[in-house]
Amino acid sequence: MGTLLESDSEKNVLLQSQFPKQNQTLMFHFDSDYMAGAHPEIMRRLMDTNIEHTVGYGFDEYSDEARRRIREACAAPNALVQFLVGGTQTNATVIDALLRRHEGVLSADTGHINVHESGAVEHSGHKVLALPAHDGKVAAADVANFIHTFYSDDTYEHMVAPGMLYITQPTEFGTLYSLAELEELSSLCHKYNIPLYLDGARLAYALASPAADFTLADIARLCDVFYIGGTKCGALFGEAVVAPDPKYLPHFFPLVKQHGALLAKGRLQGIQFATLFTDNLYVDIARRAVNLALRLRKAFEAKGHCAAIDSPTNQQFFILPNEVIDRLLQHITFEYWGPRGDKESTVRFVTSWATEEEAVRAVEELL
Amino acid sequence: MGTLLESDSEKNVLLQSQFPKQNQTLMFHFDSDYMAGAHPEIMRRLMDTNIEHTVGYGFDEYSDEARRRIREACAAPNALVQFLVGGTQTNATVIDALLRRHEGVLSADTGHINVHESGAVEHSGHKVLALPAHDGKVAAADVANFIHTFYSDDTYEHMVAPGMLYITQPTEFGTLYSLAELEELSSLCHKYNIPLYLDGARLAYALASPAADFTLADIARLCDVFYIGGTKCGALFGEAVVAPDPKYLPHFFPLVKQHGALLAKGRLQGIQFATLFTDNLYVDIARRAVNLALRLRKAFEAKGHCAAIDSPTNQQFFILPNEVIDRLLQHITFEYWGPRGDKESTVRFVTSWATEEEAVRAVEELL
Amino acid sequence: MGTLLESDSEKNVLLQSQFPKQNQTLMFHFDSDYMAGAHPEIMRRLMDTNIEHTVGYGFDEYSDEARRRIREACAAPNALVQFLVGGTQTNATVIDALLRRHEGVLSADTGHINVHESGAVEHSGHKVLALPAHDGKVAAADVANFIHTFYSDDTYEHMVAPGMLYITQPTEFGTLYSLAELEELSSLCHKYNIPLYLDGARLAYALASPAADFTLADIARLCDVFYIGGTKCGALFGEAVVAPDPKYLPHFFPLVKQHGALLAKGRLQGIQFATLFTDNLYVDIARRAVNLALRLRKAFEAKGHCAAIDSPTNQQFFILPNEVIDRLLQHITFEYWGPRGDKESTVRFVTSWATEEEAVRAVEELL
Amino acid sequence: MGTLLESDSEKNVLLQSQFPKQNQTLMFHFDSDYMAGAHPEIMRRLMDTNIEHTVGYGFDEYSDEARRRIREACAAPNALVQFLVGGTQTNATVIDALLRRHEGVLSADTGHINVHESGAVEHSGHKVLALPAHDGKVAAADVANFIHTFYSDDTYEHMVAPGMLYITQPTEFGTLYSLAELEELSSLCHKYNIPLYLDGARLAYALASPAADFTLADIARLCDVFYIGGTKCGALFGEAVVAPDPKYLPHFFPLVKQHGALLAKGRLQGIQFATLFTDNLYVDIARRAVNLALRLRKAFEAKGHCAAIDSPTNQQFFILPNEVIDRLLQHITFEYWGPRGDKESTVRFVTSWATEEEAVRAVEELL
Repeated sequence: MGTLLESDSEKNVLLQSQFPKQNQTLMFHFDSDYMAGAHPEIMRRLMDTNIEHTVGYGFDEYSDEARRRIREACAAPNALVQFLVGGTQTNATVIDALLRRHEGVLSADTGHINVHESGAVEHSGHKVLALPAHDGKVAAADVANFIHTFYSDDTYEHMVAPGMLYITQPTEFGTLYSLAELEELSSLCHKYNIPLYLDGARLAYALASPAADFTLADIARLCDVFYIGGTKCGALFGEAVVAPDPKYLPHFFPLVKQHGALLAKGRLQGIQFATLFTDNLYVDIARRAVNLALRLRKAFEAKGHCAAIDSPTNQQFFILPNEVIDRLLQHITFEYWGPRGDKESTVRFVTSWATEEEAVRAVEELL
Repeated sequence: MGTLLESDSEKNVLLQSQFPKQNQTLMFHFDSDYMAGAHPEIMRRLMDTNIEHTVGYGFDEYSDEARRRIREACAAPNALVQFLVGGTQTNATVIDALLRRHEGVLSADTGHINVHESGAVEHSGHKVLALPAHDGKVAAADVANFIHTFYSDDTYEHMVAPGMLYITQPTEFGTLYSLAELEELSSLCHKYNIPLYLDGARLAYALASPAADFTLADIARLCDVFYIGGTKCGALFGEAVVAPDPKYLPHFFPLVKQHGALLAKGRLQGIQFATLFTDNLYVDIARRAVNLALRLRKAFEAKGHCAAIDSPTNQQFFILPNEVIDRLLQHITFEYWGPRGDKESTVRFVTSWATEEEAVRAVEELL
Repeated sequence: MGTLLESDSEKNVLLQSQFPKQNQTLMFHFDSDYMAGAHPEIMRRLMDTNIEHTVGYGFDEYSDEARRRIREACAAPNALVQFLVGGTQTNATVIDALLRRHEGVLSADTGHINVHESGAVEHSGHKVLALPAHDGKVAAADVANFIHTFYSDDTYEHMVAPGMLYITQPTEFGTLYSLAELEELSSLCHKYNIPLYLDGARLAYALASPAADFTLADIARLCDVFYIGGTKCGALFGEAVVAPDPKYLPHFFPLVKQHGALLAKGRLQGIQFATLFTDNLYVDIARRAVNLALRLRKAFEAKGHCAAIDSPTNQQFFILPNEVIDRLLQHITFEYWGPRGDKESTVRFVTSWATEEEAVRAVEELL
Repeated sequence: MGTLLESDSEKNVLLQSQFPKQNQTLMFHFDSDYMAGAHPEIMRRLMDTNIEHTVGYGFDEYSDEARRRIREACAAPNALVQFLVGGTQTNATVIDALLRRHEGVLSADTGHINVHESGAVEHSGHKVLALPAHDGKVAAADVANFIHTFYSDDTYEHMVAPGMLYITQPTEFGTLYSLAELEELSSLCHKYNIPLYLDGARLAYALASPAADFTLADIARLCDVFYIGGTKCGALFGEAVVAPDPKYLPHFFPLVKQHGALLAKGRLQGIQFATLFTDNLYVDIARRAVNLALRLRKAFEAKGHCAAIDSPTNQQFFILPNEVIDRLLQHITFEYWGPRGDKESTVRFVTSWATEEEAVRAVEELL
């Protein structure tokens, strides 16, 4: 039992079991979008600048360039742009900055902050107020209903007040909020005077989706704070927090430091984001990944294996016969999401900028 | 006033003032040891492995290799070795893991956790119990006295109990604890049953100092938990937490995640530390830096400018006439630490693996 | 909107609207069980001892007597017994003491800690892991299923571990766990090595219920930590935390102080609990209250108004036609719980040691 | 050693050793000002109202009356007045409400929050920024110097920002800030835009001192938030937080609940404070206590035993020969504060509304 696991080694055994070590090199991987390093262009610029000396903590010229390019791409000339290292850290820090102490954060019950962040939000003292998820999305009606029910209760001051709304774009299930849905959530939040925060860990794959009817400028216009994910979208690591109106994140810098989220060599994020936001690289490399994901889906559907969720991005979920899964596992790794009856299971395939076309072809041939 | 600074831009102005942008490239820099990228050998291995796909969160083979090499270098075969990203984050996470809720951490009042971490330790709910610093070091007598005074007070349960001891090696002033001092602190901590934690943000420069009478194995034998600094010692980023006896850090992995300190692409730290701990690279590149620092010191002293502190590592503090400072600032950047009377000031010079011999020569010529 | 309420006065208006001020004295009240002062015998002893001087913080003889009497009543001779002031405070302090940092507390989604404590548990850094409530109760099967699902997930270390189970007896809906259900939950918790904590804010009304098939000694035998509620059961204030085996709450005293839960004049709780645990006063006064509550229920059911929940304790929930509610409100106050269709609503009636028989008779006549 | 104390019983032994149980009733006590119950007039009103039913949480008429009387006494008609239970809890809650997350609280290093609250302030995530104490008081020059030094440091955003100033009146050593000193601290705080918070745990004894050149209205005019202590000044328990301008404590009510500081039977504090603020009872009973304390001092000085600190309030500190201490301890209890050389020690005598004149006479005779 996990409660008994104290040592690293035991944990290794447990967690690595999910990842067959033997002939790893011969295999193709669709487990996640953080399995490879960084896009070659990023590595090239990191190499070119490696021996330069610059001031730390993001006050270097590369970080200035990255902030400038991001403000342009967001059409938000006054935006506060701050670089952090990873997603969980970014969510915990931003939410801690946006909430007053008596407030909690509204989120889909399937939201990353409510499930997969080991209680990072609670570590800062805030409750996650879970709303029913619809394919990973929050419904405006549920948000409005929660707030109305809350304030119509005479004892509401004994409960955790809804202080902000957290959404993910794309969601943990690869689905997207349409422009209309974002507009509705945004006006709802402003009506009730709570900030709207968008977790863009995979934002590139949302922007690159053929189903996307919104732009990065729309996100910046409708969200009070959001972050542009680097780790899963071509960078070695790094997330760019954007507050189009800086008033939403006063004194954010010391809070980032307090949360252990401030990188000494800040230029590393500056160089990476400056590269990603040059010549639209951020979206272009994601488009390729999304296209490969949709090609995978077509291949599965052609064989009669339907998708578990209608995802237009780089995460695809399929319901497969267990023998098909076993056959694929000979040459391909992907995530097992659980049984569906005795003979079938749900699995997740994820592509990224680094996914080889050869890998997709391998799947097509194996089916 | 800082309290009025809300916007990024204003902050830029303020903080970048410390760093002359103009003709940056023509200048030599001794401001700190995190101004350059990573040692070329690390960059080479990051490039070579960049397109590989590996499992995340440190369960890849490179991280296994790094853990193995570190355990060997520490002569601690059963050690828990966990990679985090930065120093403040590492201190906050380890201290949160080691302390019970009613306990605080003993530290020199000049300790990094007490001064320069924006309250990260307090953010996790713990008090820093400050002891007088002696050139940055804690005196065993002060620790013993604190603990005795504490428990001899009938009301001690109304006060914050000393739950662990935090020390830095080298200290924020470049000074070192001798082997005898470490032995004394270690036996004192074990006598009182509180863990001894060593912050090794610059540990390489301690191990490489001609004044060092201890080895990494000694550190591992005497400290219950410590971390081997990467960020300031040749890596792009990354700190390796080591608990020679894993019992001191049960359930550390989820706590690292909760603190936002878990990197998705864990192999990045694995590759860097595996490289640093191959062929003694970690200490060798630090030795070169320490030698350049001591050469700087000799140059200053030759001109009659005495050292403010007797530091045998890569940080050197000098008392200089203000006109000398102005002359040096034409071609060199370093940290200003404050006035000393009307005509003199204290300054800090820091070298690293990336310091060019040319830079030291420039100082020698300018004096 | 509540978000706009800043001033005390506005809040007064809002919250007091629930409580008609006019001719308050002529009315009978069933709003809650904390509307009157303390049982006369408690007031008598507080008066008798008022001018005595005693040491503070619960180390006086009255507190010793209370601890001794509680240990006897619980048949737990070695129990740690610590007095706190209020329920929310007690839950937050005990849960903070029982959980390791990476753990959360399992609770019915209707549990007081999950709904009505303004995020006190989260303020200490812990997540409430909500389970479906069955008339306010947690099902052993749901607990077992949660734990199994959790540890069978390879990524469980990225999620909040179930570290303890919180239950209320009676529940927020007046229902009771049977001895068999408590036995099952207890063995389940011990099987998985997580403590079982029982919130006994209204424990007296559970013990006094004709439906109770358990004793206080059974509670002490089956729960690792629980508290005996004073505030709602005859005292002015005060809750007695009991850990039959003190090992579950090491260093609890300083944690109580840290949580601001330590009363300077600790004897006030000592005197109150010593009185409540003399001649079975604690249960006797609750029995009277439960009998009046059941008599109320009989009266409503006789008129065809059925109970919303089958509660055998001092809280009764009825579904009433709105015109009946309006008629009753002329002379009686009680809690409105929400509409049920257009013509009916759910209401809560609560009795206590202080409920006058005259008040019950008034209801009977008004129906 | 305290670290080994796990069980209640052991702790009892340790802590009760400070308080001789044998013939307790024959002794006179000067240990502290929280050893007796409440002023008889308070007990009378608690008895008279005991069986009344009122709404909870401080929304009853008695609490309204108390708030009204306190606003009048403070000449602060719009003041937010919120009742809490105890001092540590009140400090932790108010400080948590006043500080932004990146800020700490300035306090004398001898301040109660820095020494005797078991880390309650840190539990809420804030650092106590200790300033040198001058007989328990903070010097305006030290505050100004701290703030200037802080903001003149380029790296100030890596440090904990001074977000408020905490002072105690009277101090832990019985000393008082003069009106001029309060004026200076107040204008300093407003100049730097940080709130001034005054801990008035013993405020009555300050207002009643012959040395007091300020009124309660002055306190309300100069402090942004303060609390009027009840526990040590005639009440059973209870502290009244006052914010003359409510804007300083927005959403304070849910924060009080979250901190476990909200009493269900709020009227208990309402009745007590309404009584204390009727016919000047609060100050009158304190004046009697202060006079007895000053009479004690005269008696000691007449015997050549000088005061350790020049205190004009109810706490007096004396340097006594150890044989005198032993003689007094036969009939009197007081606090031992530590040795002073081999033959003398410092002791603390505290009087309260409940101190019998007979007790003072006993001391006079024993000398």
